[in-house]
Amino acid sequence: MGQGIATILSRNAEEITRRTGRHIEVTHAAVRDVAKAQGVVDSHALNVSITDNAASIVSNPDIDIVCEVMGGEQPALDLSLTALAHGKHLVTANKALVAMHGNTLFAAAQKYQVMFGFEPAVAGGIPVIKAIREGLAANRVQSVVGIINGTGNFILTAMSDQGRDFDDVLDEAQALGYAEADPSFDVDGIDAAHKLAILAAIAFGMPLKFDELLIEGIRAIQQEDVVYAKELGYVVKHLGVARRRETEAGPAVELRVHPTLIPQRQLLANVHGVMNAVLVDCDALGQTLYYGPGAGSEPTGSAAVADITDMVRALSGRKDSKPPGSAVGHILPPLGFQTNALIELPVLTADDIETGYYCRITAEDKSGVMASIAGIFARHNISLEAIRQQEPDALNAADESTDTLLPIVLLSHRVREAVMRAAIAEVEALASVPRAVTLLRVETL
Amino acid sequence: MGQGIATILSRNAEEITRRTGRHIEVTHAAVRDVAKAQGVVDSHALNVSITDNAASIVSNPDIDIVCEVMGGEQPALDLSLTALAHGKHLVTANKALVAMHGNTLFAAAQKYQVMFGFEPAVAGGIPVIKAIREGLAANRVQSVVGIINGTGNFILTAMSDQGRDFDDVLDEAQALGYAEADPSFDVDGIDAAHKLAILAAIAFGMPLKFDELLIEGIRAIQQEDVVYAKELGYVVKHLGVARRRETEAGPAVELRVHPTLIPQRQLLANVHGVMNAVLVDCDALGQTLYYGPGAGSEPTGSAAVADITDMVRALSGRKDSKPPGSAVGHILPPLGFQTNALIELPVLTADDIETGYYCRITAEDKSGVMASIAGIFARHNISLEAIRQQEPDALNAADESTDTLLPIVLLSHRVREAVMRAAIAEVEALASVPRAVTLLRVETL
Repeated sequence: MGQGIATILSRNAEEITRRTGRHIEVTHAAVRDVAKAQGVVDSHALNVSITDNAASIVSNPDIDIVCEVMGGEQPALDLSLTALAHGKHLVTANKALVAMHGNTLFAAAQKYQVMFGFEPAVAGGIPVIKAIREGLAANRVQSVVGIINGTGNFILTAMSDQGRDFDDVLDEAQALGYAEADPSFDVDGIDAAHKLAILAAIAFGMPLKFDELLIEGIRAIQQEDVVYAKELGYVVKHLGVARRRETEAGPAVELRVHPTLIPQRQLLANVHGVMNAVLVDCDALGQTLYYGPGAGSEPTGSAAVADITDMVRALSGRKDSKPPGSAVGHILPPLGFQTNALIELPVLTADDIETGYYCRITAEDKSGVMASIAGIFARHNISLEAIRQQEPDALNAADESTDTLLPIVLLSHRVREAVMRAAIAEVEALASVPRAVTLLRVETL
Repeated sequence: MGQGIATILSRNAEEITRRTGRHIEVTHAAVRDVAKAQGVVDSHALNVSITDNAASIVSNPDIDIVCEVMGGEQPALDLSLTALAHGKHLVTANKALVAMHGNTLFAAAQKYQVMFGFEPAVAGGIPVIKAIREGLAANRVQSVVGIINGTGNFILTAMSDQGRDFDDVLDEAQALGYAEADPSFDVDGIDAAHKLAILAAIAFGMPLKFDELLIEGIRAIQQEDVVYAKELGYVVKHLGVARRRETEAGPAVELRVHPTLIPQRQLLANVHGVMNAVLVDCDALGQTLYYGPGAGSEPTGSAAVADITDMVRALSGRKDSKPPGSAVGHILPPLGFQTNALIELPVLTADDIETGYYCRITAEDKSGVMASIAGIFARHNISLEAIRQQEPDALNAADESTDTLLPIVLLSHRVREAVMRAAIAEVEALASVPRAVTLLRVETL
């Protein structure tokens, strides 16, 4: 990604200078492999000083803006804090860093009155941080719902379009370089959770609460659930959902990352492959959606350079453009809310979230089973949108010893998760239901 | 829309103050009907001074920001220029004003070093001006393609989903208040053209060239073309297209507004009803899309208040926050490009644009007709993607005297429009083609 930034600043130097009115130059770069980087710099005849000592950059008084693209928690955190303390404006692509240490970093940016940009940390190149933080500033945001992990969306798209299984598509994603050798960061939802924590903080003006997120990945998604969802008019997507809720105890938020059924007619359902999209619902404007590439060296580089140009523009508007003390930091605080105006919104636990649910129940093919199941949901006051007894063929072909098993699929309207789980426990306790129930959440958007 | 802004600033005062760090107050309003406005102000116990003398507001030294939502060319232009000359930062929702007089207004904003915002002038509440001007600042923009007139999209959506005719749906749009009694501004493409001229200036860093746009509306769209398009996997949308082209004479742009066939699988094809969306293609980032409500008092009010909060933030970052002389104007010039760095990009004429084409030819049902037509396209080196002889039933039911007529539909690959028109002229000269050919443009996006 560092190379993406350098490439863009070099290739588009003229266009960027037309915009900012001044030339932006990469003067120093700290890298792991000095010899290799020096070779790149020499071959492009660039005037960049290469070092493997990042500490020398973050304290260099000649540097205005530091861009952190190394990833990981340390030494990125210490280096970033040192940069801020030395009055550098900071751009970071490091979502883990912002999600887990954003509160510390933002306080430091406020203390040293410098600008802190992290557009590349969420949804790749899509300018969604800017859109929410500035473009929607007139609004009270109600919810942010996004496809914010390209690897996961690639896998689910292939499972849906090509009828393939999770493991099979994961192999392909790894071969194509979309997924790492250890894919857990993507397919277990950690990466999406980092981004959702950041989006929620910006949307609601609250501190980062990564530790309190509900996080579920896509490993457990079965091909048959993708098929049944499609028959019901839905698509399975891995979503991040941040939603403001008014509870009896006061305002709160749901923060959750999980596979979700959404209606096929929704734009989000038509976001395919490695693309990302974020749907924001707010009071004055209504629903807006932001779509684009969620990863890649140049797309994320584009977001970093956008943050850099914002900083250059702000600095250019001032005579006293040298930090520290330039006091431009509070033009736009990192979250778009004044640091002393953040609100502690409690994060609802899994029991208290409310969505629709998709349940796949494997039951014996006996009379009265459907009635028993429907009765349980009725007693829990769970209103059902659809209930379907599926053809047992596929199920039994895979497991010949149990030729009397029958898949029953149902969709519920919105209900508290604790209520749904209590009902499912009763269903699973039925003698005629020999297997665990598959439960997926549904968002109608 | 003025009321939308006042409502938002009042209802969301706390949320907006959390963001900007200071309270934003509407202190003066110029209106047509003073008594009516005074009644609204009194009933909400607002402290707003009401007048019918707009000139008194634009020269009032106590006012920092003027918001122009009156519409029309005059007196909006004179009032805006007076406001700028008095050092007011200006927000306008007036797309006709910006499209036709933007060059004059931007020069005045530069001269008096004030900020000029026009987010509400394009695509309603979607922060697409900000996205292109700031979020994509790292990029060389290749094209901007948008559904930027909600009325037109409402009509085309109903024609496609419900199989209704243009006139029928227009009546409904008028009854619902989506279309004016005189709908020409919307359905003849003028409104979309205003917005496209603005988008092109921001995307390419060029002066506004509204007078040079190719503008076609949707009145001529027939139900049968919507149906045939669907059979070919396309949807008919009214698009604004701004595209950078490298020609033998150097860089140039296509600026055009017209009904267009786009593939059903594209996100833009799934933008329904009065919603707007803008697809931007640029070099580092690739394709991004921005979707949301294109009209309405609160959505456009949201965009105006976003511009206002940007201004308040920029002013708050400075000790010398009083215009004139505060020199904040060049933090962000109106088009996002430095005023002295705009480039004169010639606008290609209709002859020189290049797209795909959909042609519907009504021919007599005789042997050899298809061969004659195909031969003409071949001689002009127009490569065809599809050619279909349609069922003649519908056509002949409407016109019993000509029961031998046959509709032939073809799709061409990308070709210069002059070449296509020459071929069509030859087709229309055939004795077996008794009617004018229907020609629609195709964009694969």
